[in-house]
Amino acid sequence: MKALDLITKKRDGQSLSVAEINFLVQEYNSGVIPDYQMAALLMAIYFQGLSNKETSALTAALAMSGENIDFSSLGKIVVDKHSSGGVGDKVTLILTPLVAAAGVPVAKVSGRGLGFSGGTIDKLESIPGFSAALTTKRFMKLVSENNLAIMVQTENLTPAEGKLYALRDVTGTVENISLIAASIMSKKIAGGAGAILLDVKTGRGSFMQSRDEAFHLAEIMVRIANDMQRRVVSVVTDMSQPLGYAVGNSLEVKEALAVLRGEGPPDVKQICLVLGGYMLALTGRVRNPDEGQEELARFLENGAGLEKFRQMVISQGGRAECLEDPSLLPQAAYHAEVFASQGGYLREIDARKVGNVALLLGTGRTYKGEEIDPAAGVLLNYKVGDRIAQGDLLATIYSNREGACNSVCRDLNNAFSIGEERVEPASLIHGVVPPFPS
Amino acid sequence: MKALDLITKKRDGQSLSVAEINFLVQEYNSGVIPDYQMAALLMAIYFQGLSNKETSALTAALAMSGENIDFSSLGKIVVDKHSSGGVGDKVTLILTPLVAAAGVPVAKVSGRGLGFSGGTIDKLESIPGFSAALTTKRFMKLVSENNLAIMVQTENLTPAEGKLYALRDVTGTVENISLIAASIMSKKIAGGAGAILLDVKTGRGSFMQSRDEAFHLAEIMVRIANDMQRRVVSVVTDMSQPLGYAVGNSLEVKEALAVLRGEGPPDVKQICLVLGGYMLALTGRVRNPDEGQEELARFLENGAGLEKFRQMVISQGGRAECLEDPSLLPQAAYHAEVFASQGGYLREIDARKVGNVALLLGTGRTYKGEEIDPAAGVLLNYKVGDRIAQGDLLATIYSNREGACNSVCRDLNNAFSIGEERVEPASLIHGVVPPFPS
Repeated sequence: MKALDLITKKRDGQSLSVAEINFLVQEYNSGVIPDYQMAALLMAIYFQGLSNKETSALTAALAMSGENIDFSSLGKIVVDKHSSGGVGDKVTLILTPLVAAAGVPVAKVSGRGLGFSGGTIDKLESIPGFSAALTTKRFMKLVSENNLAIMVQTENLTPAEGKLYALRDVTGTVENISLIAASIMSKKIAGGAGAILLDVKTGRGSFMQSRDEAFHLAEIMVRIANDMQRRVVSVVTDMSQPLGYAVGNSLEVKEALAVLRGEGPPDVKQICLVLGGYMLALTGRVRNPDEGQEELARFLENGAGLEKFRQMVISQGGRAECLEDPSLLPQAAYHAEVFASQGGYLREIDARKVGNVALLLGTGRTYKGEEIDPAAGVLLNYKVGDRIAQGDLLATIYSNREGACNSVCRDLNNAFSIGEERVEPASLIHGVVPPFPS
Repeated sequence: MKALDLITKKRDGQSLSVAEINFLVQEYNSGVIPDYQMAALLMAIYFQGLSNKETSALTAALAMSGENIDFSSLGKIVVDKHSSGGVGDKVTLILTPLVAAAGVPVAKVSGRGLGFSGGTIDKLESIPGFSAALTTKRFMKLVSENNLAIMVQTENLTPAEGKLYALRDVTGTVENISLIAASIMSKKIAGGAGAILLDVKTGRGSFMQSRDEAFHLAEIMVRIANDMQRRVVSVVTDMSQPLGYAVGNSLEVKEALAVLRGEGPPDVKQICLVLGGYMLALTGRVRNPDEGQEELARFLENGAGLEKFRQMVISQGGRAECLEDPSLLPQAAYHAEVFASQGGYLREIDARKVGNVALLLGTGRTYKGEEIDPAAGVLLNYKVGDRIAQGDLLATIYSNREGACNSVCRDLNNAFSIGEERVEPASLIHGVVPPFPS
């Protein structure tokens, strides 16, 4: 088997066999196939696509390139949750303790945030002391003891995926739906969960800007999971405006804590219950998603979810007193305010623009390894559809970088669109793949 | 300017500017842009193509990446000739001394052969002592003194082209007509000729198997030459059957000598006169190609072409006595014969199959730097359209590799197709681009 022959085969629109895909991934991972041949192959894939069979084979090959976590000794089905990335998406912080509180083990492996979309690990690590840098052994122990642990992806897990993603990032080959699906799913497969909830976001603040693309990605990932004998549900959710009011690491932790206390923004609460309902149904813990939602709603009211969150924070080294007194979380030295220049109805809060403003403030990374500011971010005051008067406070901007707040006011203002007529906000849940129960 | 942005620009079907193409070639040549980014760009070009303007810009950038030979001090227009590659193509050996004999300086820069198509340098270097490894200074001196020199391409000339071709060769991006044209033309431009005759071959034994592709390549190359202020004619010629009877280095030298003595196969003689006529007309030495042909035909008869060939061989270190006594040229230790298994008319001699057989015998290289056998090759006895009786000798196979001759007999036999009805051989000259005089 020769890499050149496989490049031309794909270039000419033919399918690669499972053996050929295994060969490519193994030899690339071991350095036998050089970056330049893989780059040419990736661009050929960009133009010619991958079939479902090829995509599943690539996922399996990437998953097998490193350590595979095995929870079979638990004797229980373990669930993982993945979001395709959005702005203000603190769902994992609320959802995973809720599901764990229901007795279902949650083993969440997560990467660090890159670009306008925030990362769960960065949010949690804004809690002083908290660390997601767990060994696999510790991760498994915590899942076994607490039903919950969140681990940052290590280099032992899917190393070929890491190498391939880094290459895609510099060769213009990120934006292929099969490669995106294989990349996400290989990590989920290697992470050892038997059931996977996929939250595929669509809209301005997501990677899949069109609804069709989002459903397409959801379908491909569901098919891969089925091919790998994993239970799976994909929920396509809205990311046209930011989720909740808070965007930025410690700001989002505070909002997540509010939801876990039975307060917080209704949209965040709703999406957590919907996704959680599917997670419980998927593992067989409840008979159907509605039953799951009802149970999880009780855990918001009675504090069982918050208790589970506290247990996780303590187990992973975080200072629990921050949960009672959020003023102990990182605070920004500077802030600025954005006011409405006209009255009317809020028609749009462009999530992409808000995400990019937050990025400029220091909430995330524009390159791998960049230092972030855990206190930075944006606190919105309204949601789409709200009535606004001229001069109302639209948002507060936070940062520890002097001058950063004022420099982004104009950009943030541009994210808001105010008009005469009221518009209905987009539905939060666009659909479920496969239709549940499948 | 960032390489990644230019990759995605081309990937998305947009045109690159002259400045962008210069940036890419310069930074790639200096090692700033890595192979993997250039590989991705090449594959994007494979799918999205290059416009005429982009192709000319790429040619210029590649040509400017190293030394540029300057013949302006000669005070005369210098002509170069290029063949897109064929089987049994010894035209350069005859044509260049003929044109030089007419007083037109010929400066031929040539690469070594790779694959089924032979290389002019390898043919000439089968003459004991002959060397095409000239310095630029010596090359210019010989052109100035003798009107003729043939130099193997050095690393100083178009280094970026060499680097890019090596990358294309291992990334499945050779077969793009704009990249092929830019690669060829950059070397011609850097070689310093003011007039260029392009022999674009079409048919089984060429790289452009379809007539349309060949005319397309001819047109692109003519447009590039025009953009670079070079005089140019492209002649599309037939390569369905091998040219002449001899395929292999010293075998072809012998056949070329026969033509220069006024003998030899009519097809070889005809193509040399036609191409030579254009070369003389292109430089203004004659008023039109027909006049050029008549003059060159006289140089075949009166031995002026042979005399010029002798002068070049001596000037470049070759043993002139080989020209009088071709038995001094390398001789093969082994031979085998292929006979007609049936009678009838010769309908086809598949040039590609003959070329591949010759390659197996050792006439050329399957990889760069491979040792070749100067005496190896195939001597055909017939041309398409000839009447054959069962048992007639179709071809003799020569090699210095024991067992090689017998192992290819069957393959060579498969190159011949014999049928009941006589077929007309394809026209040797398919067309001229631009219609001459332009």
